[in-house]
Amino acid sequence: MGSAVLAAIGDELLSGARLEKNASFMAGHLHNKGWEVKRVEVIPDEEGEITALLTRWVGRTDLLILSGGLGPTHDDRTRYAIAKYLGCGLSLNDEMYDRIVSRVKHDPLRLAYTERCRDPQALIPDSAQAVFNPAGSALGIRFESNGTTTLALPGVPMEYQAMTRQELPEIFAPDSEHCWASVIILGVPELTIAERVPEVIANPELHVSILPAFPQVELIIRGEARGVSEAERVIRSRFRDDVLPQGCSSLAEAVLYEARFRGARVACAESCTGGLIGAALTEIAGSSDVFSGGAVVYSNEAKSNILGVRAETLREFGAVSEECAREMAGGALRIYGADFAVSVTGIAGPDGGSESKPVGTVCFGFASDRGTRTMRRKLPGNREEVRSRTVRFALSELWRMIHDAW
Amino acid sequence: MGSAVLAAIGDELLSGARLEKNASFMAGHLHNKGWEVKRVEVIPDEEGEITALLTRWVGRTDLLILSGGLGPTHDDRTRYAIAKYLGCGLSLNDEMYDRIVSRVKHDPLRLAYTERCRDPQALIPDSAQAVFNPAGSALGIRFESNGTTTLALPGVPMEYQAMTRQELPEIFAPDSEHCWASVIILGVPELTIAERVPEVIANPELHVSILPAFPQVELIIRGEARGVSEAERVIRSRFRDDVLPQGCSSLAEAVLYEARFRGARVACAESCTGGLIGAALTEIAGSSDVFSGGAVVYSNEAKSNILGVRAETLREFGAVSEECAREMAGGALRIYGADFAVSVTGIAGPDGGSESKPVGTVCFGFASDRGTRTMRRKLPGNREEVRSRTVRFALSELWRMIHDAW
Repeated sequence: MGSAVLAAIGDELLSGARLEKNASFMAGHLHNKGWEVKRVEVIPDEEGEITALLTRWVGRTDLLILSGGLGPTHDDRTRYAIAKYLGCGLSLNDEMYDRIVSRVKHDPLRLAYTERCRDPQALIPDSAQAVFNPAGSALGIRFESNGTTTLALPGVPMEYQAMTRQELPEIFAPDSEHCWASVIILGVPELTIAERVPEVIANPELHVSILPAFPQVELIIRGEARGVSEAERVIRSRFRDDVLPQGCSSLAEAVLYEARFRGARVACAESCTGGLIGAALTEIAGSSDVFSGGAVVYSNEAKSNILGVRAETLREFGAVSEECAREMAGGALRIYGADFAVSVTGIAGPDGGSESKPVGTVCFGFASDRGTRTMRRKLPGNREEVRSRTVRFALSELWRMIHDAW
Repeated sequence: MGSAVLAAIGDELLSGARLEKNASFMAGHLHNKGWEVKRVEVIPDEEGEITALLTRWVGRTDLLILSGGLGPTHDDRTRYAIAKYLGCGLSLNDEMYDRIVSRVKHDPLRLAYTERCRDPQALIPDSAQAVFNPAGSALGIRFESNGTTTLALPGVPMEYQAMTRQELPEIFAPDSEHCWASVIILGVPELTIAERVPEVIANPELHVSILPAFPQVELIIRGEARGVSEAERVIRSRFRDDVLPQGCSSLAEAVLYEARFRGARVACAESCTGGLIGAALTEIAGSSDVFSGGAVVYSNEAKSNILGVRAETLREFGAVSEECAREMAGGALRIYGADFAVSVTGIAGPDGGSESKPVGTVCFGFASDRGTRTMRRKLPGNREEVRSRTVRFALSELWRMIHDAW
């Protein structure tokens, strides 16, 4: 254990063109092992900035991981900056790069391209070591100096992840000493949660993060194993009816867990979310034993032809109505042969709102063999936020329906 | 114009529990106006770290925006750190907070909760100004010192975005002088692209970022308006058949653009992507005039019952086969009454692979009234990556099919 600094290099990250994700991935794994992540920094594609970063942190942290700037184009400057920092030249590591080339030898186009990228992708500073890339073609760089292990890895997430696993196996190994738990509570405001478990929040042995994302609040508790499990027990007992099952780190997991437990199958019918509910459920490996599928019905014709929504319902109440949601959920239950179905139909915006149905109006249907329940909500935010809140609300009520269906 | 530093405060960002998105949003807007974003930093929820951040940057950048740490719970420390840095006390800004409270006065539960959060959410350092929050309940903080404007805003993206627009209207105003263009090229490796437009890459007046995301590469060109538009013209003329239409910043936009141009309707049938293709198309406002909908068919029964995939096709070739993809695409075309349909069926992993169909095997179908074409690919990566590559490949080939359908 020790301290780490994670840095990402790339103008595309400072210009808003790309979201930085490697630091978040690595921070999670380090944190779970009791490491302190002191800082995440994003800096431009400039040699001077990269050498300044090395000067800033080498000797002041145990681990420094850089991502990005190792590709074949003009804006990839990391290898040159490291050589300048170490005061050495660069040489091609042909032996290691040949292993990369040999992986694509069956594909003439990729072979030619990989060969053309050898200089600079195999260029390694003479005072550093090359790091093999099991998932791509750019070599990484590693050096030890002043008590700091520095790793420079490609920014492509698949390559970054494969290479951190390879170079830092101890971070990814199972561990019984350091522990964390996540508890997800539905429909209770964050301050109310904090007030109902004061002894957990105040415990100096624990670190508790409170992360709201309507309609859920996630508590993440870290610390020594026994303290964490006692805190989790306390929280679960205080919020019995509103807490997702142990081990479920998302609403989608909780839906799949409850349905699997009952041998039930789930389906959905989506309008304004366009497939996001199905995508959330199928993000989880093994969802196929529970999730039958979903109908994305964006047009009125599709709502009628595929789900059997009646023309008079659409005419009288409109597509965004509890009546339409009711028939959509019933239709999904029927055509997918499911035991539980959820439907959503709403106005995600920015256009399409009216006085009686403003942007953010969403109707939900929840169907099972016991009947169908509908709800209507006005959700805040722009198109993206209305859609993601709709998904979370639909999954949370779907979970409650399955959970309460004894 | 000037320089900016963007900082995010929150243990959840350093522990990998949440992805930082505000800096990316703000960096994009600043960059488009010619501002230099010198650094993005993520620091822990600790007063000492926040005051050190202020000490590090106040006086060394024109604009410093902090996000996070302004909520009502124990780990929200930003307001106290700013008061310590400024050497002043804190007082409740009741006048401004009353305006926030009055927004929720029709809802007794929210009213009571908002009142309970007044202390600390209305607490403002005495030497700073309060910033109104039009989208939430925590007040922001603003102060000018040593030539630096410092803004501390809530980390909730909806609130952060509304408050930056309110406080920095000049950043969000239209502008003809500073310009950027995005050109998306399909199926050409990044180095080949760089070599085919050397004069654009080498132009010292332009800043070109090259962002690969299989099967596309995005070029982002920034600079003075005339230079950017000439560079865009050159790139478009060199990659005529492989470049997305002007103004399309994503594959989904290009699909909708081409279909709208032809008065055509689009549908999809998804297995391993579970709704992600529909979600990508409907992420774009106004997609309903083009996108009819999609069938998420995870189970074999759903594939047969809803899309009419024949039982003998599933028996003989399996669900992951070009034959099944062909019938899925044809079924989607038919049930949605669409002019073009895309289907995907594959093994996203981590389980379910075999020697003849390893994890990452995905079959695609592309149907129109001219007939159906199928393809099979082996895509690399974990479940999430296989799924996102599948979406991008499906949309890129769907775009080509519609584009070539004259």
